[in-house]
Amino acid sequence: MRRTDLGGANCPIARSLDEIGDWWTLMIVRDAFRGARRFSEFQRGLGLAKNILSVRLRKMLDDGILELVPAAGGGAHREYQLTDKGLRLRVILVAIRQWGEDHLFEAGEPMMVMVGKEDGQPIGRLRLTSKDGRSIDPWDIDVKDGVRGTEDVG
Amino acid sequence: MRRTDLGGANCPIARSLDEIGDWWTLMIVRDAFRGARRFSEFQRGLGLAKNILSVRLRKMLDDGILELVPAAGGGAHREYQLTDKGLRLRVILVAIRQWGEDHLFEAGEPMMVMVGKEDGQPIGRLRLTSKDGRSIDPWDIDVKDGVRGTEDVG
Repeated sequence: MRRTDLGGANCPIARSLDEIGDWWTLMIVRDAFRGARRFSEFQRGLGLAKNILSVRLRKMLDDGILELVPAAGGGAHREYQLTDKGLRLRVILVAIRQWGEDHLFEAGEPMMVMVGKEDGQPIGRLRLTSKDGRSIDPWDIDVKDGVRGTEDVG
Repeated sequence: MRRTDLGGANCPIARSLDEIGDWWTLMIVRDAFRGARRFSEFQRGLGLAKNILSVRLRKMLDDGILELVPAAGGGAHREYQLTDKGLRLRVILVAIRQWGEDHLFEAGEPMMVMVGKEDGQPIGRLRLTSKDGRSIDPWDIDVKDGVRGTEDVG
């Protein structure tokens, strides 16, 4: 199914999903965070047909989510590496994961967990907050017309 | 393309994407947050073929993301409403949106913005944190085997 092109939409959700809404894209990002760097590593991890993986990786290079860098070991080949834009997708992966932990797993069920490298403890929960840092509920948010500000990315 | 079935995977990212990884699902959730409640409202908002929307809404009912409730105005028809499980998807929408704001919009470009209902101000940014609340970077996280705990959902 060819979906509507929303790359020019003024809704950031629509525009983001236009770029990363393909299920495989986020699975590739997940595997990159787990250390996959070579085509064969992504292919093995995802069980994805080579031609489909190839198209997908090419698009992620074009979109600036991945970049090709010389192999860490000094070989002739190049490896895939997340750009800063790609690294920032981790917040989305964490949001997706925490929702799944809550709603798709039973207590005590085996599950991959995310831990801080420094303390080895499960990371904290993402929290919806108001501008001044108070927790807010999912339904206490409105959407309205505006413009993209000039704040730094971070 | 039929994707791999990862509904039973022990990775919460994979299991979540198996349920909500379809681009349309999150767009339907977005429109529900904006007030869409009737089939015709979703159809108009998304420009989606009726048969495809129908299949998608049915699956979201089956998955417990949407539920059918009597019409607010007291009519004979029923309307779609987000369940608590569906409402909790807002964190994912916010994560997707904030990434898009950072990387897919230029400063000053027209953009829908999310504001708190109470203060009318743009909501805060989601932050990756350690267990004790310190900010952590996307690359300072490891993934390891574990089990789903018994914490309350929230």
